[in-house]
Amino acid sequence: MVMISINQQDELPLVEQVVRGVSRQIDERVLRQGARLPSIRQFANDHRVSRFTVVQAYDRLVAAGYLESRQGSGFYVSKPVDAVAANEAACDLDRAVDILWLLRQSMQQRQFELMPGCGWLPPEWQDASALQRGLRTLARGRSRALVEYGNAFGYLPLRQDLQQRLGELEIAASPNQIVTTHGVSQALDLLFRYFIRPGDKVLVEDPAYFNLFGPLKLLGAELIGVPRNQDGPDTAKLEQLIQQHHPKLMITTAVLHNPTGTCISQAVAYRLLQLAEKYQLMIIEDDIYGDFHGGRATRLAALDQLNRVIYVSSFSKTISASVRVGYLACHPDLAQELVDLKLLTQLTSCETSERLIHQILSEGHYRKSMMRLRSRLERAREQTIGPLESLGMGLYAEPEYGFFLWTRLPSGCEWNAAELAHRALESEMMLAPGNIFSPQQSISPWLRFNAAFCADQPQVFERLKPLLECAASDE
Amino acid sequence: MVMISINQQDELPLVEQVVRGVSRQIDERVLRQGARLPSIRQFANDHRVSRFTVVQAYDRLVAAGYLESRQGSGFYVSKPVDAVAANEAACDLDRAVDILWLLRQSMQQRQFELMPGCGWLPPEWQDASALQRGLRTLARGRSRALVEYGNAFGYLPLRQDLQQRLGELEIAASPNQIVTTHGVSQALDLLFRYFIRPGDKVLVEDPAYFNLFGPLKLLGAELIGVPRNQDGPDTAKLEQLIQQHHPKLMITTAVLHNPTGTCISQAVAYRLLQLAEKYQLMIIEDDIYGDFHGGRATRLAALDQLNRVIYVSSFSKTISASVRVGYLACHPDLAQELVDLKLLTQLTSCETSERLIHQILSEGHYRKSMMRLRSRLERAREQTIGPLESLGMGLYAEPEYGFFLWTRLPSGCEWNAAELAHRALESEMMLAPGNIFSPQQSISPWLRFNAAFCADQPQVFERLKPLLECAASDE
Repeated sequence: MVMISINQQDELPLVEQVVRGVSRQIDERVLRQGARLPSIRQFANDHRVSRFTVVQAYDRLVAAGYLESRQGSGFYVSKPVDAVAANEAACDLDRAVDILWLLRQSMQQRQFELMPGCGWLPPEWQDASALQRGLRTLARGRSRALVEYGNAFGYLPLRQDLQQRLGELEIAASPNQIVTTHGVSQALDLLFRYFIRPGDKVLVEDPAYFNLFGPLKLLGAELIGVPRNQDGPDTAKLEQLIQQHHPKLMITTAVLHNPTGTCISQAVAYRLLQLAEKYQLMIIEDDIYGDFHGGRATRLAALDQLNRVIYVSSFSKTISASVRVGYLACHPDLAQELVDLKLLTQLTSCETSERLIHQILSEGHYRKSMMRLRSRLERAREQTIGPLESLGMGLYAEPEYGFFLWTRLPSGCEWNAAELAHRALESEMMLAPGNIFSPQQSISPWLRFNAAFCADQPQVFERLKPLLECAASDE
Repeated sequence: MVMISINQQDELPLVEQVVRGVSRQIDERVLRQGARLPSIRQFANDHRVSRFTVVQAYDRLVAAGYLESRQGSGFYVSKPVDAVAANEAACDLDRAVDILWLLRQSMQQRQFELMPGCGWLPPEWQDASALQRGLRTLARGRSRALVEYGNAFGYLPLRQDLQQRLGELEIAASPNQIVTTHGVSQALDLLFRYFIRPGDKVLVEDPAYFNLFGPLKLLGAELIGVPRNQDGPDTAKLEQLIQQHHPKLMITTAVLHNPTGTCISQAVAYRLLQLAEKYQLMIIEDDIYGDFHGGRATRLAALDQLNRVIYVSSFSKTISASVRVGYLACHPDLAQELVDLKLLTQLTSCETSERLIHQILSEGHYRKSMMRLRSRLERAREQTIGPLESLGMGLYAEPEYGFFLWTRLPSGCEWNAAELAHRALESEMMLAPGNIFSPQQSISPWLRFNAAFCADQPQVFERLKPLLECAASDE
């Protein structure tokens, strides 16, 4: 059954919601070419919208080439035009294909009614009014800047903001050590393209942010998982793995690690840097959740001062995922090389977006809005941990900050987390099972919950309950 | 001597202009680490600004880490912090290094007083007010959309605009064949990463848009230049080259080719597609200047209907280079693969920018503003061709539309175009010599002139005159 999410309260017209929902499912191959769509009456009943809305939406989808109407038979997802046999791809997308499935799922999560597995905050939690004010200010500002190519390193005033922000984290970085990017994704992609040759071994944490795995595999890297403990990567195991595999690069998150929500201890950070020094390892520190930490956290880059550590972060989780502003900070010589790579492959970044973020940072509300978010998240975690524990789920570690809760299925649960997630999809709920965070996609009893979504959507717990009972009663 | 461009009429404060000018020169290594800056008095005299302005600017540059002040000795470009020996890069930036030099030059062209070699329009020629109105509309619109991740293919309403635009060019493409990108650069980078393995032969035109060469070399491709005639690529030579090198890919511009300003004839287009069919060649058609053509032009994609032809374009030359919105259109299966690659390497594109461009296109002024631009360019070409010919320069072909004029140095000129361009830099004038448009960077007597800049800056001709006389009197 085709189900898309319709929100009667949304200011977006219902026709538009149907057009977007269906086209997205086609784009993401949830609806396959040749598939038949529900009849207009059926779709209208399923989604509690008028038939007139569905007629209009289907018509627009036909006009847009997504659907074709067959006389007397209904609406079908359009067939492709006659094709040349697809050329062989030089890059091995297949190697990354499981990841791609996950990524597509993750980019379509808002199609589901409940999203406790989501990797970001509910849009309503973010301060869109700051973006609106920022846009108005840009509209009033220097018009020339709206049409010109930006600086290759990135908009200087924003890099100066970042210099100050990094300074507050005790990381000294001048603007010529800071390169803006299209989200953390481009920062990582530039770094991976710069460092990695096919066959190279790369250390990632296990579990880790799953969007890392695809780009690494695409470049032919072999992923080596380092077990992640509550206080950071397991350094004893790390040294063994280094000796065994001779990796040149490690990617790690010190602060509010995704998915566990844990932070590195000072001792582990120090030991990690000692090993990096001893074995000539470069470390990429992904600090994308750093601003959610309200206390004094240990960062590798603050100890090492961008010598062996390359720092990457972005505003996608805090200000806006849509404007795509991220950055990296590193040694100035490396920064120049990465800017060259950025220029060659994408020219400059989007200065309009960078000016927008600079505007928001200079306005002075960012700090306060992060403080509010942190308090709200604290309550959300409390509202989530209790109900999860009542369901028999066990928390890996209680995070001090952030929105991720890494929880274990009840003992006696016959299903692994992927099986549970699969069943949950049937009741319109998107979970984040542990296997997707494993570099080897190993079966796992762990799940990542997003406290913000759980607090907003307490139905999550009601829907989890029968699923867990069902999993237990399979015995 | 350090010279940056200062504009007393600019609304940007003078201090800011100095800070930007100097930091840019440091970023782009025009000013090298350890270099001494002019004294405050000297800088103030050279640039006709007050000493107080220079003091403030130097102070800010010290605070930003660009400069260091040495007691009694003056200001120097900061030394890098102590460095780990740079790791060996996996991607061969050196292979692309000449291109990089050009790219950096090209991205800093506005540092020069006169820019007849520029590859885009003067910012004042573009309709910044449309962007300002667009930003205000975005600020009033649906706030959720400002914070959420966009669709992986790109913002659907914009893809529908593009479907219509392509339809007007007689290229049928449904939105699931259209992928938005970060300028044409990302479109090309995705395509190159998808198709090219190290050692692959790739056909480019000779001369061609020089930003093509770097990314191709970076991926280890070998560039094969196909001579470009007034009516398009030389198809007889093309077939020879195909038989000799077995390339899998060709990149070409049918309409308003950069640098020659010429358009492909129907006969050559047809022959080119026949050869592509016969030898299983994929063709990337770069149509970035297409909207400057006001008549009926021949496009490969209109003949082939996105079968062997992949169409790429952007709004960087017409609406804004800063917002970085480009796109590609191709067979739907390939589009899905390219979206996967886009997701893996950068997630989604910047939906805020895409909504801005959609806003401008829906507003309905775009077509009119392009009409005005075309008339203004027609006058500009007239104002440029005469003076160039008076200097003894010969025009390759008189373009019907656009801003590029491909001209040959006078017979008897002892310098090649690169030598002339080098001398011109000393008089603050940036030229675009033919060697940079050659896949082999061959010495060339050709130069590309930008009619819009020449019309705005008639001093260009006055400064060219003594240079050409000098080149001739060397005999």
